[in-house]
Amino acid sequence: MNKICELFKIKYPIIQAGMVWTSGWRLAAAVSKSGGLGLIGAGSMYPDILREHIQKCKKATDKSFGVNVPLFYPKLEEIMSIIIEEKVPIVFTSAGSPKLWTASLKKKNIKVVHVVSSVKFASKSQDAGVDAIVAEGFEAGGHNGREETTTFTLIPMVKAAITLPLIAAGGIATGGAMLAAAALGADGVQVGSRFVASDEASCHPSFKDEVVKAVEGSTVLTLKEITPVRMLKNSFFQKIAALYEKGVDVEELKTTLGRGRAKKGMFEGDLDEGELEIGQIAGLINEVIPAAQIIDNLIEEYDQALKNLKSY
Amino acid sequence: MNKICELFKIKYPIIQAGMVWTSGWRLAAAVSKSGGLGLIGAGSMYPDILREHIQKCKKATDKSFGVNVPLFYPKLEEIMSIIIEEKVPIVFTSAGSPKLWTASLKKKNIKVVHVVSSVKFASKSQDAGVDAIVAEGFEAGGHNGREETTTFTLIPMVKAAITLPLIAAGGIATGGAMLAAAALGADGVQVGSRFVASDEASCHPSFKDEVVKAVEGSTVLTLKEITPVRMLKNSFFQKIAALYEKGVDVEELKTTLGRGRAKKGMFEGDLDEGELEIGQIAGLINEVIPAAQIIDNLIEEYDQALKNLKSY
Repeated sequence: MNKICELFKIKYPIIQAGMVWTSGWRLAAAVSKSGGLGLIGAGSMYPDILREHIQKCKKATDKSFGVNVPLFYPKLEEIMSIIIEEKVPIVFTSAGSPKLWTASLKKKNIKVVHVVSSVKFASKSQDAGVDAIVAEGFEAGGHNGREETTTFTLIPMVKAAITLPLIAAGGIATGGAMLAAAALGADGVQVGSRFVASDEASCHPSFKDEVVKAVEGSTVLTLKEITPVRMLKNSFFQKIAALYEKGVDVEELKTTLGRGRAKKGMFEGDLDEGELEIGQIAGLINEVIPAAQIIDNLIEEYDQALKNLKSY
Repeated sequence: MNKICELFKIKYPIIQAGMVWTSGWRLAAAVSKSGGLGLIGAGSMYPDILREHIQKCKKATDKSFGVNVPLFYPKLEEIMSIIIEEKVPIVFTSAGSPKLWTASLKKKNIKVVHVVSSVKFASKSQDAGVDAIVAEGFEAGGHNGREETTTFTLIPMVKAAITLPLIAAGGIATGGAMLAAAALGADGVQVGSRFVASDEASCHPSFKDEVVKAVEGSTVLTLKEITPVRMLKNSFFQKIAALYEKGVDVEELKTTLGRGRAKKGMFEGDLDEGELEIGQIAGLINEVIPAAQIIDNLIEEYDQALKNLKSY
């Protein structure tokens, strides 16, 4: 897994996903200090808030860190200017065309990684000149692709299509899964849900508790007609499900979704009316622990799982 | 992966999935002769045809083989009588309650394995006294569960819930994926789609060619309101998709599905009007080869992938 460590100048090829309402400077700095790569999630931050988080992260650690920017962000120019001004060394882009920003960021010596959920967009990202690709499976939490291709099948198919360093995402919360991703051809992993249930995550404690309580089958990928998103099946989801029962009416879905659902759920802790974005692997997450311990566990479990594998 | 080899008295913990219109005695015998466990798929056979396949398989090899029986089969009593009379050593049951047949089959010294797609049914199967469990992820072809839990997340969650030998299914067509399944805690693998594109599979050559042509995104899990099934997105699927656009009407779906769609597609080779059941990993399958070569490739790729893994 050296390619990813070399690219980002980190000890372990573990990237903490940039997650709305969850990954501020505290989480990103804790991960980077522990040998992984922490990402600040710009998707839920006003520009001045993002600048504050970047500055605090730089003060907290001299290790590499990055910012994740969803490309549908309304104030994208302003966000990118701040990232360049503050000399953030690494940017992960998602939810948009990799052609949009890759060249201009790379001119500023910023490493650019694009998140994809299909082979087609992996190839497009490589053509656009990114430094690495995150391939994210159907099981991942939050916003996701339409093809429903799972981590287990997406990773080897993307690997066969590109030559760039490849980061696997979706379903990875243990060292065993990190080893499995490596066996499928990934050079590193991006871990989301596991870091939601960390001490340093900025999301609401009640949301973290819900993640810990989740079991197999607790999440669903829905709202494909607007933007596909995986979330816990709470009361808000039941309202969405009832609309689907009647047949798909996009306008009605949009009205019911309304605005600020993710903030309400994940940041304000409204477990009934909020949108609680999390991956399928929440079913395997049983406690809220410090980010440093998550990294330690991943490495220890990885080494143990590797020792258990036998050749023929 | 010794538990599975011991249980079935086989060399490699590779099970060839029992697949309708595809896995007759030729495929099952070829896999068993090559060191794996071949399964005859009873789901598409009249009782007398199944007996013929079992007898031919016994003549073709003295190695272990089994029969896969979907428990919604209309002539289930008759099928099970034949299996017992013909002294089939191993039965895989699916699509029904593991309580129904496990005890009576085990009394006849038959090893019983149940296929599940959720942690809940894995636990129920263990309680029912089965010898091993197949946990099949969302990416698998053919009939599937409703929870949409992927192989990458299902395997470790089932592993944490049961003590029985565990067979991973869904998305496994290479030795790298077999290694990944082991890293996630599986004791063996069940391989379906890869064996569809084998010389010995009894499905139509045109269907095998479609599997070879498939790319990432070519399949979809649909018909959840009847019985969830993953298939290629052909003309028949487009008709189903058009019905969904209008809103869910189960009777209309059933009428459009009609009877014999799977036979029409997979056995008769009607690529437009037939149901072409296959897994997401079809996107990685590029040629029709003998079953023995598939087994050899799986083991060779597994060992190579294992050598490439490094510890921290």
